[in-house]
Amino acid sequence: MSRDLRPLFDPRSVAVLGASTDPAKWGNRLAMGALRGEARRSVYLVNRNGGEILERTAYPSLADLPEPPELVVVSVPAEGFEEAIDASLAAGAKAIVGITTGLGETGDEGRAREAAIVERVQAAGAVLLGPNCLGIFDAAAGLDLGWSELQGGSIGLVSQSGNLALELALLAEDYGLGFSRFASLGNQADLEAGELVRSLIDHEPTRVIALYCEDFRDGRAFARAAQEAVEAGKPVILLTVGAGEVSAQAARSHTGALVSSTTAVEAACRAAGMLRVRSPRELIDLAQAELAHVRPRGRRVVVIGDGGGHGIVASDVALAEGLELPPLSDDLQARIAPHLPDAAPTRNPVDFAGAGEQFLTIFQDVTRLLLESGEVDAALVTGYFGGYSEFSGEFQAQETEVALGMARAAADSGRALVVQSMYPHSPSLVALREAGVPVYREIEAAAWALGRLAERAEHPPRGVPGLPQPVDGPRAPDYWTARALVSSAGIDFPAAHRVASLDEARAAAAELAYPVALKALGLLHKSDVGGVALGLEDEQAVEQALARMATLSGEGYSVERMAPVAEGAELIVGCLNDPRFGPVVLVGLGGIYAELLEDTAVALAPVDEHEAEGLILSLRGAPILKGARGRPALDVRAAARVLAALSGLAASRPDLAEVEINPLLVLPEGALALDARAVSGENGADAR
Amino acid sequence: MSRDLRPLFDPRSVAVLGASTDPAKWGNRLAMGALRGEARRSVYLVNRNGGEILERTAYPSLADLPEPPELVVVSVPAEGFEEAIDASLAAGAKAIVGITTGLGETGDEGRAREAAIVERVQAAGAVLLGPNCLGIFDAAAGLDLGWSELQGGSIGLVSQSGNLALELALLAEDYGLGFSRFASLGNQADLEAGELVRSLIDHEPTRVIALYCEDFRDGRAFARAAQEAVEAGKPVILLTVGAGEVSAQAARSHTGALVSSTTAVEAACRAAGMLRVRSPRELIDLAQAELAHVRPRGRRVVVIGDGGGHGIVASDVALAEGLELPPLSDDLQARIAPHLPDAAPTRNPVDFAGAGEQFLTIFQDVTRLLLESGEVDAALVTGYFGGYSEFSGEFQAQETEVALGMARAAADSGRALVVQSMYPHSPSLVALREAGVPVYREIEAAAWALGRLAERAEHPPRGVPGLPQPVDGPRAPDYWTARALVSSAGIDFPAAHRVASLDEARAAAAELAYPVALKALGLLHKSDVGGVALGLEDEQAVEQALARMATLSGEGYSVERMAPVAEGAELIVGCLNDPRFGPVVLVGLGGIYAELLEDTAVALAPVDEHEAEGLILSLRGAPILKGARGRPALDVRAAARVLAALSGLAASRPDLAEVEINPLLVLPEGALALDARAVSGENGADAR
Repeated sequence: MSRDLRPLFDPRSVAVLGASTDPAKWGNRLAMGALRGEARRSVYLVNRNGGEILERTAYPSLADLPEPPELVVVSVPAEGFEEAIDASLAAGAKAIVGITTGLGETGDEGRAREAAIVERVQAAGAVLLGPNCLGIFDAAAGLDLGWSELQGGSIGLVSQSGNLALELALLAEDYGLGFSRFASLGNQADLEAGELVRSLIDHEPTRVIALYCEDFRDGRAFARAAQEAVEAGKPVILLTVGAGEVSAQAARSHTGALVSSTTAVEAACRAAGMLRVRSPRELIDLAQAELAHVRPRGRRVVVIGDGGGHGIVASDVALAEGLELPPLSDDLQARIAPHLPDAAPTRNPVDFAGAGEQFLTIFQDVTRLLLESGEVDAALVTGYFGGYSEFSGEFQAQETEVALGMARAAADSGRALVVQSMYPHSPSLVALREAGVPVYREIEAAAWALGRLAERAEHPPRGVPGLPQPVDGPRAPDYWTARALVSSAGIDFPAAHRVASLDEARAAAAELAYPVALKALGLLHKSDVGGVALGLEDEQAVEQALARMATLSGEGYSVERMAPVAEGAELIVGCLNDPRFGPVVLVGLGGIYAELLEDTAVALAPVDEHEAEGLILSLRGAPILKGARGRPALDVRAAARVLAALSGLAASRPDLAEVEINPLLVLPEGALALDARAVSGENGADAR
Repeated sequence: MSRDLRPLFDPRSVAVLGASTDPAKWGNRLAMGALRGEARRSVYLVNRNGGEILERTAYPSLADLPEPPELVVVSVPAEGFEEAIDASLAAGAKAIVGITTGLGETGDEGRAREAAIVERVQAAGAVLLGPNCLGIFDAAAGLDLGWSELQGGSIGLVSQSGNLALELALLAEDYGLGFSRFASLGNQADLEAGELVRSLIDHEPTRVIALYCEDFRDGRAFARAAQEAVEAGKPVILLTVGAGEVSAQAARSHTGALVSSTTAVEAACRAAGMLRVRSPRELIDLAQAELAHVRPRGRRVVVIGDGGGHGIVASDVALAEGLELPPLSDDLQARIAPHLPDAAPTRNPVDFAGAGEQFLTIFQDVTRLLLESGEVDAALVTGYFGGYSEFSGEFQAQETEVALGMARAAADSGRALVVQSMYPHSPSLVALREAGVPVYREIEAAAWALGRLAERAEHPPRGVPGLPQPVDGPRAPDYWTARALVSSAGIDFPAAHRVASLDEARAAAAELAYPVALKALGLLHKSDVGGVALGLEDEQAVEQALARMATLSGEGYSVERMAPVAEGAELIVGCLNDPRFGPVVLVGLGGIYAELLEDTAVALAPVDEHEAEGLILSLRGAPILKGARGRPALDVRAAARVLAALSGLAASRPDLAEVEINPLLVLPEGALALDARAVSGENGADAR
């Protein structure tokens, strides 16, 4: 769905339904804001009592207006909401902003009312923002409904919280940044986050898209819209919540929304190329870098400081943020050395050792040499620069000139330049920022933003994958049907026999040949409770194992050919169908240590073998698979084939909440699924 | 060494040697600063050219002064430094601040010159700060030599970098914080960081001690001084560097100092109760909390917000910073509910759902109920509070009153209160800060500071341990002497025989009984290159293993009784003698995964068994030892006994750079050292 939102963000006429003379009411604020756009459009204030509001005649109803209002802002009590919508549509409205609260966020009944309203709105060819939203802002269109405190700029903001939007605005001011457009999401009864993101792609003044979102509705569509924006050159930064269960609980209370799990959001961000942040501060820090078009091609950074401990503190922080500080080549060091005092360190960090005060141009000259060397992807200038302006007007003029020279060096070299300064508001640094170089006050912010962008450069987004046609299958799969399902995707298991008695177990073991494994079926975490016996060497061992499991099982046993576990390493491979984002694939190293540390990687499913291999190799424990410390290299490609096949399988079975292979044994050649599990989506019936 | 530093920080008279009329010179700045203290003390400006400086008569030499200068600030070129010191001492100086550069930081010759100077200074009963330092500041004493930009306050600062001190001052201003005293460390030729820290313990105006330090000189003495300060109720916050090799390289260049390894610094911080930070911003964030005397007893936090997403964003950030958000009891929720709107979440986070605007006192009332409940250790108020003052003067007065009520609630309850606000400079929040509640602008700063203090509460410092008398031992121990050394501390090994041939190996194996292990000695990382064979079941296996190792070894073999490795888990246990901080003990989980992730814990050695057990249990992988997921619980106490014994052994052998047991096999009962290694300190001769 991609509708024309011009009537919403740049209407030819606007009516405020529920306009008020009371300064404590939102209806007053909306009216005042609407009137600020009078030069561009007709503004009508509507209040059923008529009279005068803000020195304008108030109309008793929409029917009394002299022309159809293209946009109606509805700020009436919940009981009158339907009537207000109908009146708006009857008056010819093409867009409605629903400020009214007390609808979908209160529960099922409210959601049903909203659904009925949306049907009428859509039938009339109109759009509805909200309800339960706080208003909209569009700088270029001079539209300001409720947001008098926003400064104009290049950030397009979509937010589910008004207060957080306000905090973002205050933080942005520090960097001289402002907003091109803002939409308060509210309940997303009609317009969802995804459609609003898509509308920003063609909105020329918007150069970076920022979101605060708790509920993604059609998360897959949202991710596709974000991907399109990123591909169109408009970075998308997402502030969202839900790391903890408690947190999810609060979000549910907050908007009546089902918070999407972090796992699925993370996968969506990777696929679409969105950058996820955890706080308003991080969002604005990253927005500054994105607006400056900082594009490091990798993690190699040179740190440049002028004396004191700044260079080494910055180096430590940069390393902690995942950046690399390669020692500069002897040749490059020799080329910068003549610019610096004798004892000045040139290896990386480069320290001017206090010389900046005497020869301010070295900032420009040395930064250029370093950026043009090809030895680094970015330069990080830290500490005092910006402070020379404090000395005198002459210093200020010179520092500004040098700053602009640094910006030119960055542009000419095609490398990234980021500055941290104790004096971030110095005139020279304001000029530097205007010339397209981000300037931070804190070294952690500068290094963090650079680190995030370097990480993205190393892992370009693969796009939101399409979904296969759903296929049918068993509704509540047990161990055997789960095995059959996974096998059908071309994934190998050790041979196995279903047994119910000692005699059957003996016969099965004899046929498979010793050693064998024995599993008690129908248990959650069966290996934790003694439901798995490995390496049974003879009949007696099988008999003893079966006796020990006798108290555990209600669903019989499986006797299986023993896999060569000592020769390989184990992975956990799973796929879940998220209610918002659809199928998501997850891979982690097996073994208790890896599980304790939750060393996992996720992606929107399905993934191809190449992407699957990338996921596996992104694990912190990946060196174990690649043959670290004298171990044999394992068949990562085979594991990737399994992961890809499983992801395709799960994507074609949206009725299953989860399909899992745990463990998957990766061998020097090939990979074997040692267990399978599928969970039905509807009733959670679970088979092991 | 604990000398009287009153002549340094509050001299009765001061002389500036090298005072200058040139505003570009430090000698001018020093003179101007010294003159600001004229009301309190005599100030003499000395310049060999005489004449007039800053409208005062300049004396041609110290000998010309009308009285002995208690403090002399020396800002002359390096070649005249000795002469200046001698003249100062001859004139009766009891303290000298050496601004002069070009001495110890340039190399061995400079260090030798410094050593000779220090001898004369100490013989005269005087003290020397620097050289290569930038000056000192003492707010109460009105002494300001070089630091005109410092605001007075309660932070005592010792810094090896002037620019970083300046950055700290600028960041502190944001929170209305200032400095009681500042000393620029320079080369620490005489006065070291530790002695300066100790001098701040009795300095009444200093309430928090902050340090930027690259070189700790006598690190153990430094740590003891910090411990004394902490025990005297003056928290110590340390900004230091050295996470990366490159970083260490730069620090070396920067001050000619040998940067102490991060491991040893970390151990010293834990022992002394210092808090280590990585940036100026973190230092000031923590200083604010320490000055406010925030003392959470644990990690349990309730998050309080007023509408919007602030509460849930704060909850996510708090969880990420290691805090816990316990769901509030039904009883407590029932008690706060009447204060809040109907649908407001009360579980944790508590969200006023926009009610603050109407009933501002709920901030005070609900915060008190929560803090007094006993269910949390701290409350974290987030988001809009502070902004109500923007509405009107009446709101401002009310918000200030409510803020002070919140401060009283915190004081009465004995629980911690921390506030994050979009409006941190609001008058109500300035009042709140003055009432002893820290107020942050960013939620990550607030949550991080609270998290650090909660962590400290859970791990109270154990103090800097004393060192045993050094004992003699073999200089360059090989495998067998290392084994004997470790055995002598009461640590068990499997029985082993030294063998040089197949015949000897066969005989040894027969005596020990199969299965056995075979090791090729004299190799670095022997298990990585095939130098270890485990579980050899018979003569043939021994023969084959020996044949495979034939090309590896030059120092013979060891045949050892096979330990029951499958029954236990492996630790890496080591102790190193750091050149600055002395013996440091390290423990980590074994296995390639744990090694990849560097899951280790460190402490100053020696440690007792109780502390050793705490170290082991602090590992992320500790659940493996405690019997996670159905595994048997292992004998952590036995491992702790080994760790304690090894730490005592290494502490008594400062001539050894390193003693290591890798692996230590922890069994359900007992622990066995499976390998030992010792490295001589002098020449790095290394035996395996």
